[in-house]
Amino acid sequence: MADTVFSKFETVKFEGPDSTNPLAYQYYDADRVVLGKPLKEHLRFAVAYWHSLAMNGSDPFGGPTINRPWSGAGDPIALAKVKADAAFELFRVLDLPFYCFHDADIAPGGATLAETLKNFHTIVDYLGEKQQSYSTKLLWGTANLFSHPRFMAGASTNPDPEVFAWCAATVKHCMDATVQLGGANYVLWGGREGYETLLNTDMKQELEQMGRFLTLVVDYKHKIGFKGQILLEPKPKEPTSHQYDFDAATCYGFLKRFGLENEVKLNLEANHATLAGHSFEHEIATAGSLGILGSLDINRGDALLGWDTDQFPNDLWTMTMSMYHVIKAGGLGLGGCNFDAKVRRQSFTEEDLIHAHVGGVDLCTRAFLTAAKLIESKTYDAILDERYAGWKTPEAQAMFTGKLSLEQIAAKAEADAINPQPRSGKQERIENLLARSIYTDKL
Amino acid sequence: MADTVFSKFETVKFEGPDSTNPLAYQYYDADRVVLGKPLKEHLRFAVAYWHSLAMNGSDPFGGPTINRPWSGAGDPIALAKVKADAAFELFRVLDLPFYCFHDADIAPGGATLAETLKNFHTIVDYLGEKQQSYSTKLLWGTANLFSHPRFMAGASTNPDPEVFAWCAATVKHCMDATVQLGGANYVLWGGREGYETLLNTDMKQELEQMGRFLTLVVDYKHKIGFKGQILLEPKPKEPTSHQYDFDAATCYGFLKRFGLENEVKLNLEANHATLAGHSFEHEIATAGSLGILGSLDINRGDALLGWDTDQFPNDLWTMTMSMYHVIKAGGLGLGGCNFDAKVRRQSFTEEDLIHAHVGGVDLCTRAFLTAAKLIESKTYDAILDERYAGWKTPEAQAMFTGKLSLEQIAAKAEADAINPQPRSGKQERIENLLARSIYTDKL
Amino acid sequence: MADTVFSKFETVKFEGPDSTNPLAYQYYDADRVVLGKPLKEHLRFAVAYWHSLAMNGSDPFGGPTINRPWSGAGDPIALAKVKADAAFELFRVLDLPFYCFHDADIAPGGATLAETLKNFHTIVDYLGEKQQSYSTKLLWGTANLFSHPRFMAGASTNPDPEVFAWCAATVKHCMDATVQLGGANYVLWGGREGYETLLNTDMKQELEQMGRFLTLVVDYKHKIGFKGQILLEPKPKEPTSHQYDFDAATCYGFLKRFGLENEVKLNLEANHATLAGHSFEHEIATAGSLGILGSLDINRGDALLGWDTDQFPNDLWTMTMSMYHVIKAGGLGLGGCNFDAKVRRQSFTEEDLIHAHVGGVDLCTRAFLTAAKLIESKTYDAILDERYAGWKTPEAQAMFTGKLSLEQIAAKAEADAINPQPRSGKQERIENLLARSIYTDKL
Amino acid sequence: MADTVFSKFETVKFEGPDSTNPLAYQYYDADRVVLGKPLKEHLRFAVAYWHSLAMNGSDPFGGPTINRPWSGAGDPIALAKVKADAAFELFRVLDLPFYCFHDADIAPGGATLAETLKNFHTIVDYLGEKQQSYSTKLLWGTANLFSHPRFMAGASTNPDPEVFAWCAATVKHCMDATVQLGGANYVLWGGREGYETLLNTDMKQELEQMGRFLTLVVDYKHKIGFKGQILLEPKPKEPTSHQYDFDAATCYGFLKRFGLENEVKLNLEANHATLAGHSFEHEIATAGSLGILGSLDINRGDALLGWDTDQFPNDLWTMTMSMYHVIKAGGLGLGGCNFDAKVRRQSFTEEDLIHAHVGGVDLCTRAFLTAAKLIESKTYDAILDERYAGWKTPEAQAMFTGKLSLEQIAAKAEADAINPQPRSGKQERIENLLARSIYTDKL
Repeated sequence: MADTVFSKFETVKFEGPDSTNPLAYQYYDADRVVLGKPLKEHLRFAVAYWHSLAMNGSDPFGGPTINRPWSGAGDPIALAKVKADAAFELFRVLDLPFYCFHDADIAPGGATLAETLKNFHTIVDYLGEKQQSYSTKLLWGTANLFSHPRFMAGASTNPDPEVFAWCAATVKHCMDATVQLGGANYVLWGGREGYETLLNTDMKQELEQMGRFLTLVVDYKHKIGFKGQILLEPKPKEPTSHQYDFDAATCYGFLKRFGLENEVKLNLEANHATLAGHSFEHEIATAGSLGILGSLDINRGDALLGWDTDQFPNDLWTMTMSMYHVIKAGGLGLGGCNFDAKVRRQSFTEEDLIHAHVGGVDLCTRAFLTAAKLIESKTYDAILDERYAGWKTPEAQAMFTGKLSLEQIAAKAEADAINPQPRSGKQERIENLLARSIYTDKL
Repeated sequence: MADTVFSKFETVKFEGPDSTNPLAYQYYDADRVVLGKPLKEHLRFAVAYWHSLAMNGSDPFGGPTINRPWSGAGDPIALAKVKADAAFELFRVLDLPFYCFHDADIAPGGATLAETLKNFHTIVDYLGEKQQSYSTKLLWGTANLFSHPRFMAGASTNPDPEVFAWCAATVKHCMDATVQLGGANYVLWGGREGYETLLNTDMKQELEQMGRFLTLVVDYKHKIGFKGQILLEPKPKEPTSHQYDFDAATCYGFLKRFGLENEVKLNLEANHATLAGHSFEHEIATAGSLGILGSLDINRGDALLGWDTDQFPNDLWTMTMSMYHVIKAGGLGLGGCNFDAKVRRQSFTEEDLIHAHVGGVDLCTRAFLTAAKLIESKTYDAILDERYAGWKTPEAQAMFTGKLSLEQIAAKAEADAINPQPRSGKQERIENLLARSIYTDKL
Repeated sequence: MADTVFSKFETVKFEGPDSTNPLAYQYYDADRVVLGKPLKEHLRFAVAYWHSLAMNGSDPFGGPTINRPWSGAGDPIALAKVKADAAFELFRVLDLPFYCFHDADIAPGGATLAETLKNFHTIVDYLGEKQQSYSTKLLWGTANLFSHPRFMAGASTNPDPEVFAWCAATVKHCMDATVQLGGANYVLWGGREGYETLLNTDMKQELEQMGRFLTLVVDYKHKIGFKGQILLEPKPKEPTSHQYDFDAATCYGFLKRFGLENEVKLNLEANHATLAGHSFEHEIATAGSLGILGSLDINRGDALLGWDTDQFPNDLWTMTMSMYHVIKAGGLGLGGCNFDAKVRRQSFTEEDLIHAHVGGVDLCTRAFLTAAKLIESKTYDAILDERYAGWKTPEAQAMFTGKLSLEQIAAKAEADAINPQPRSGKQERIENLLARSIYTDKL
Repeated sequence: MADTVFSKFETVKFEGPDSTNPLAYQYYDADRVVLGKPLKEHLRFAVAYWHSLAMNGSDPFGGPTINRPWSGAGDPIALAKVKADAAFELFRVLDLPFYCFHDADIAPGGATLAETLKNFHTIVDYLGEKQQSYSTKLLWGTANLFSHPRFMAGASTNPDPEVFAWCAATVKHCMDATVQLGGANYVLWGGREGYETLLNTDMKQELEQMGRFLTLVVDYKHKIGFKGQILLEPKPKEPTSHQYDFDAATCYGFLKRFGLENEVKLNLEANHATLAGHSFEHEIATAGSLGILGSLDINRGDALLGWDTDQFPNDLWTMTMSMYHVIKAGGLGLGGCNFDAKVRRQSFTEEDLIHAHVGGVDLCTRAFLTAAKLIESKTYDAILDERYAGWKTPEAQAMFTGKLSLEQIAAKAEADAINPQPRSGKQERIENLLARSIYTDKL
C-alpha cells in the first residue's frame, strides 16, 4: 500500500451516538438494516475526486491554500498516480463504498486530443488496478467540459462545431472508462451550456445542439450495452450567467422535448437547488413525481451568499425532508449520495477533509434514519390521506379522470349550490411534529 | 357619457419626442407603420382592470390609500357600474386599444355560487354595452381563483375537490364572458397553485389535478369554438411559497407532459421573470424558441426587493431586448402588452395613474422602435451568422442532424486531430453597440 | 373570567422531552434554573398582540382567512375589550410571562387625534385591569406609525411636519401607557422611515428629523423617570423600499451620530436580519460587541422568499447560535424573546395559534439549554483562546494598544523577517462539534 | 516607446454623438467645461491595473483565457516591466487621466518580506519613470492583503498578530509609494476582514484590531504629510462570507466608533452596493449626507447573479442618478471614477479591453452630462423644496431644532387638533420626467 498523505489516518469506524471521538461515525453503521436493506445500500455514499483531491482552496480573490504532494511540479502522469494512491487511501479511511470523478480530476490534459485521451486512459487503467486492492467502487464518471478555455462558449452548445466534436470524443472515452471501471452511472453537467448574453447567442440553435448531444450519448449507451443510468445535473447559474439546465422541472421539459424522459434521470445537488430558488427537497420531490430521480450531490449552500459554496451538509431539517422524499420516490436505485462538497479555504489540512466527510456522513445518515422512521410510522401519509380524502369519492374521481367535461362540472356545481369551506392546513402543528422527530431522534 | 373621476382628463395625444407635455405621448404614434403594420397592432397595449381600477394602495403593513367613488359603501352592483364607467373613461383618456380583467375585478362576489355568477354576468353585460360606446376592446379575461379564502389551499390543485368544481364553474363562465365580449385570449394564473409546505402536500396528485383542469379548459375552448389563445402565466413564488408554474421552461414541461404544448401559450410578466431568476428577455426568448409565446404583462420589479412590486416599466435596455425577442419570435399575434402594473402607494391621485401609463406606453414604444430598427438593420443577425457559421458546413450538419453517431464523431475528431481555438465573444463591443442604439435613439 | 375563544384550552404545561402531547412543553420548564436563574427570567418570552390578536391572514393577493369574534362589525371599544379578554386568556393558555403591543393593535383609531388617544387610554386602562387578574406582564409597548395613510411618506421622517407632530403626540402617550402598565421597554420600529425613490427624497433632512425624534424620546424618558430601555428595531426593506434602520451596524452609526449610543439599544428580529443579508446570530453578536443588544423578536424568514414571512422559529442551529451570543453578550436584561411571528394564512383556527407558540417556545428553550451547556463547557472559549493566543504576548499588545506606530511595526517586521504561516480554521471540525451538541441534546 | 500589445491601437478620440466609430468617444470630450470645470476634472477616470492588466479570465470553474506577454514564464521583474510598459500604452490609447494599483498587481511577491518589498519598490520606481513619459497619473494606490494564503483568516483582523505586522509593513510601503508617485488617495479594501463562521471568530477583538490598524494608517499619513485622502472601500460579502465593511452606513459607524469620521472617506463601488442590497446612488447619497464621499469604483453587477461580476457599466438610469448625487455631494474632489471592471471571460483580446473602456467612459460621461443638466435646471430641487416646504415654517423649525420637547409638541398637536392629510409622492410622474431626460439626452 502506497505511503500517502492519508495513510496515517485510521479507518473511521462506527462507534454509536455516545461516542465523543470526532473521527468516528455516530450514526453511520453501514450494515445496519433499515427498511429492508443495509444503510450502505440505501445511501451509497461517494467521495468526489473533484472536490477532495483536485481543489486547491483558491477563490476569485485568492490563490491556493491547499498543497498536496501532487500539486507541485513534476511528471504529470506520475503525479496523477500519486494523487490516485492518496485518493484510494482517503476512501479507505472514510470506508465509503463509492467515488466519482471527472476526466480532468484524475488525469492531466495533453497538448493534443490524442495525448489527452492517452493520459486519461493511462490513469483509468491505474484506477482499475487500485480498485482491485480497495473496496470502493465507481458511482459515476463524467467529463469536465467547462474548465479549459476551449469550452468557454459552451460544450455541446458551442458556436464552434469543433468543440462539439471534441466533447463527443471526450464523452465517448469517458463513457468507455466508466464501463471499464464498473461505474453505476454516467453524469453530464453543463456548466458552460448556457449564455453570458443573449446578444451573441442563438438559444434555439444551442438547445437543439444540446438535444442532439444527449441523444447521441443515449444511443451510445445502448450500443455499448451500458446498464447504468445517464444522469443530467441541473444548475441555474455559475459559471455561466444563465445555464439551460436550470432546475429539475426545466430538465424534464428538455427531456420531453427530445423524447429522452425515459432514458435520462437527474443528479440533483442541494446547492444548485437553492441557487435556483428551490429547496433541495423540492427538487427531489419534483424529480420523484416525474419519475426522473437519479442520484444526489449532497452538500449545502449558504442562503446569504449567491454562489455555489459547496459546503458539507449540516442542516438536519432539510436533509431529513430530502431523505424522506428520496424514500417516497423509491430510493436512489443505481444512484447514491455524492459528497460534492469542499472544505473551506482555511481548512487546508488532510485532517480537515476527513472531519468534513465524517460530519457529512453522519448528518445524512441521521436524516435518513429519521426519514425511515417517519415512513414506517406513516404519520405523514395519514396527514395526506386525510387532507386529500375528498378526491377518493366517485364524484371527485369523475372530475379527476376526465369523465366529466368543464361544463358538466360547472352544471353540477351550480345545481348542487356547492360552497366549499376553508380547512386549516395545520402547518405549525405538523412542523412541530417534524421538529420533535428530527431533533429528539425519536418519534 | 358618465361623469367619472377620469372624465375631466383630455385624451392623451401623440405630440412627438420634442413635446414637453407630460401628459402627451412622445413616442406612441398609434398609427405609425413599422415593420409593415401600425404600432397599435404590434403592441396591442392593454389597461389592467385589476391594478388600475381594483387596487387600493394597501400593502402588508398598511391600509388603503386610494379611495375611488366605487371603494366605499353602497349597492355592490351599482358601485361596480360606477367603476366600469370610470374604467372606460380611463381607457378613453389613455387611448389604448385593449383592457383585461379578472371576474373579481369587475363584479362583486355573492353569498352563493349562483349569486356570484349572476353578479358577474350582470356586469359582463354592462361591459358589453360600454364597449359599444368606446373603442377599447378586451385583450383577455381571467378568473381570480386566489383571493377568496376558499382558494387558500389552491384552486384546481386544492385538496378539496369541491374547490376544483367551483373553479371549473367559474372558469366556464369567465370563458363564456370572454367570448361574449370578443376577447382575444383567455388567461390562467395559478397564484395559489403550489404549496406552502411539502409536509401537507401531495405534489404528484396536485400536478395531475392541474393537468386535468387545463385539459378541461382546452376541451371547452374547442367545444364553444373560441378562436382566441389559452394562456398560462408563470410565476415562481408569492403569494404561495412555491408555485408550480415557476417559469416559462417549467410551464413548457408541464404542457408537454399533458400533451398541451400546441394548445396553450404563455402570458409572460417581467416581474415574474426576475423573481424566477431570469431576465424578461430570457423568458420571451425561451417561449419564442419553444413556440409558446403568447402575450406580455408589461411591468418591472425592483431588483433589490424580493417580491412582485409591479411597477410601471422604465428600464429601456431590458424592454428593448424584450421587444427584440418578441419580434424575433414572430410578434405577439393575438396577445398584447398588458400594463399589469400599479402606481406606488403614495401615488393615490387619478392623475398619478395617467402619468404612470403615459410613461409606460412611451417606454415600451421607444423600445419597440429601437428593436425594429435593430431587426431591420440585421446587425445582430449578422453577429450570430458569423458566430455560428461553422454549423452551416456539411460536416457540422452531419453531427447536428444525427447522421453521425457519437463514436463516429469521436473517431473523426481523433483522426483529424482537431484543436478548436477560443474566439472572442465580443460582449462589451456588442453591448456598446446596443447602448448606443438604445440611448441615442438611432443606430 | 371572560368566555373567550381561547378559554376552552387548558394551560400548556411542561411535560418533559418524552411527552408526546403536542400541546405540552417538552423543554420549557419555566422555573428550571440554568446559569444561575430560572429559564423564564433568561428567556422572558412574550406574545405579540400584533401577530396573534390583530392579524387576519390576508396577504397581497388574498383577503382575511382568520375571523375572530372581534373582527366583525360592532362597537369598536366593546370589540377591543373582547379582543383583550381573549388576549389574556391566550397568555394564560401559553403560560408565558410577557406580552407586547402597538397602540393600533389594542385600540381602534378615531376620527380625530383626540378620539384616537381617548380610545387608546380606555383600552390601556382595561389592559391594566386585566393585568391584575393574570400573571402576564408587559415586555414593551410601541406605536404603529406605519399603517395609517397619514404615515405613507414616513413618520418622523415625513416631509410634512404635522405628521412628525402627530407621531410625537402618539409616542408620548404610548410611552405614558407603557409606564402605566409597568412595561420593561419601549420600542420604535420605523417601517416607513425610509424612501421609495431618492427622486423625491431629501435623505439628509429626513435622517436629521429621525435623529431629532429619537432625541426627544430619550429626553422624555428621563423626564418621566422611565427606567426601561428605549429600543430601536432595525429592518432593511419592506414596507418601504429602503429603510434607514437597515441593520444593527447602521443603527449603531445612527446612534453614534446623534450621541445616543448609551441611551438606546436594539430590538433585533431574526427575519429582519436575513432580509438585510445577515444571520440572526450575526446581528446579535454585532449588537453585543457594540453594547447595544436590547431584546429579540423571535421568528424566522424563508431563505427562498424575499419578504418578511414572520414564521414561528424551527431552525435549531441558528437559534442555538443566537442564544449562545445572547448569553455571551450578558443576556437580554430587561429585554426578552417576543414571538413576532404569525401563523400561516391557512392556519386560521385558534388551536393553530397555540401549536405555533408551543413549538416556538420549545425550540428556543432547547436552543438556550444547548447554548448554556456550550457556555459552561467553555468549548468554544477554548477554541478562541487558542486561535487568538498570539495577541496575548507583550509584542502583540504593543501593536494592539497603539504603543507602536505603523512605521515602528513595519521596521520591526522587516528586521525580524517575519513570515506568518497559515493555520487551519478547522471550520468543519468545529461545525461537527456543534452539530453533535445541537442535534443530540448532549455535549 | 516600448512595443507592447496595446501599441498598435490609436489613441481614442472624441468624435461626438454622431460618430459611428466604435473606438471613438461619443460623449467624453475631456476638456468640455460643464458646471465650471472640464469633464476630465469632474470625472477623473482611472484605469484599474488589477482588472485590466492582472486578471486572466479564470473563474471558479475555469482556467485562464487571457494570455498576455507578461503572463508566461520568465524573470518576474522583467515581466512586470513588460506589463508596466503595456499598461502605460493602454492608458495612452484610452487617453484617461489616472490609473490605480494594488502592490501585487504591479510587482511579483518574493520569498521573504524583504524581497517582496524590494520587488515592489523596483517597479514603483519604474512606474515613476513611465509617468515621466505619459500624462496618466496615479489616482490611488492600495495593498492587496487578501490574495496570498497568509491573509486567508484576515489582514489586520487576523488571529495571528504576525499577519497584522506584515500588513502594517506592507501598507507603510504602499503609502510611501503612493506619495512617491504623486497619488491623490490611498485606499483600503478589507476583502478578508470579516469571518467565515462566528464559531471560530472573536468579532469584538477583530473589530478593535481593525480600528487600531486604520488609526495607525491615519497617524502615518499625517506624519509623512500625505495630503491625499484615506479611503475605505465597503463590501458586504465575497470573498469572505461576512465582511465587516458591509456598506457605507456600516463604515460610518465604524469610523465614528474610532473617531476617524473626519479622517477617512469612502471609495464606493457599484457592484458592492448592490450586493449589500442597496442601489449605487443610495450608497453615494448616504456617504454624501454623512460627509464621507471619497471616490467611486465604476462598474455594475448582474442583479440576477449573487457575486461581484464587475462588469463595465451600461445602465444609464442608475449612473445618471449616481452622478446626480455625486454633484449634490460636492463632487469627487481628490477622488475619481475608477473602472474597477473586467472584461468577460470570453473577451480575451486586447481590443475587447479597449471597447469595454470606451463604452464605460461614454456611459458615465453621458450620465454626468444629464445629471449636470438636471442640477442646472433645478428641476429636482424644486420638487424637494415643494415637498418639504412645511419644514421651513418657524413652528416646524422649533420641532426640528429641539426647541420643543416631546410633551410640548404633543400638547400643541392635541390643542391644534391636527389632522395631516396624505399628499401624492408623484413617483411615476417624476420618474417619467427623469426617463425623458435620460433617454432623450435633453431636458
